[in-house]
Amino acid sequence: MNDSACPLCESDGGLLVYRNQQWRIIQASEAGFPAFYRVVWNRHVAEFSDLSADERAVCINAVVTVEQILRSALQPTKINLAALGNAVPHLHWHVVARFDWDSHFPAPVWSAPQRAPDEAKVAALATRCLDVNRLIAEKMAH
Amino acid sequence: MNDSACPLCESDGGLLVYRNQQWRIIQASEAGFPAFYRVVWNRHVAEFSDLSADERAVCINAVVTVEQILRSALQPTKINLAALGNAVPHLHWHVVARFDWDSHFPAPVWSAPQRAPDEAKVAALATRCLDVNRLIAEKMAH
Repeated sequence: MNDSACPLCESDGGLLVYRNQQWRIIQASEAGFPAFYRVVWNRHVAEFSDLSADERAVCINAVVTVEQILRSALQPTKINLAALGNAVPHLHWHVVARFDWDSHFPAPVWSAPQRAPDEAKVAALATRCLDVNRLIAEKMAH
Repeated sequence: MNDSACPLCESDGGLLVYRNQQWRIIQASEAGFPAFYRVVWNRHVAEFSDLSADERAVCINAVVTVEQILRSALQPTKINLAALGNAVPHLHWHVVARFDWDSHFPAPVWSAPQRAPDEAKVAALATRCLDVNRLIAEKMAH
């Protein structure tokens, strides 16, 4: 089931970190948030409850594994998880490592910014995310 | 483990719809969003991955059950799920039925409003949520 009008059917949706038959993990391209990942279910379904119970377990396990890698590698202030999809109703889970210095903390990334981005810290985090990408790919391959 | 400085340790956090030993479901009090529910893990943990695998399955099953009831009872445009907790780092899942007419759609509820609330539709939805609360309580008790 592929929807030609759906951006997540037509492209990976970001930097592809790992992909298997059921889902993929991408690093999003969100300014100020290098540690913004998404678990995208490959098949075009809108809602988490459109998956079977087995599929939901597979999907949430991928989400949790990304969360665990982000916590271990980056020691973030908080992890944010979300499946929204109002604009792109193709199931994707946002997994975002949040830091008390980031431009929006403690507000959600979708809120108004609280402060200007700290470009030096963002750049340093982006570098650390190169390791995160490798760690995710290695962990998921096993 | 109870944290006296934590609002979700000190109170239900909204209108209590159902509670068991591990988690509770509350109807939030968010203006313009009567169909805004939360699954709150009773024990004070910050992150979803702080739960054991068994606990995560229990927790996400409660989230999905609320999602299924909201879809069935309200036919929303979209369901939004999120575990953020930047301000209140006590694990709680937002489960929100979104409608194309709501004040923020298609933006997240945490974004700037897109339009004024339609008070008549909000009031009608609030009435339907009385049934949703009953349905959730009945379903969870079985």
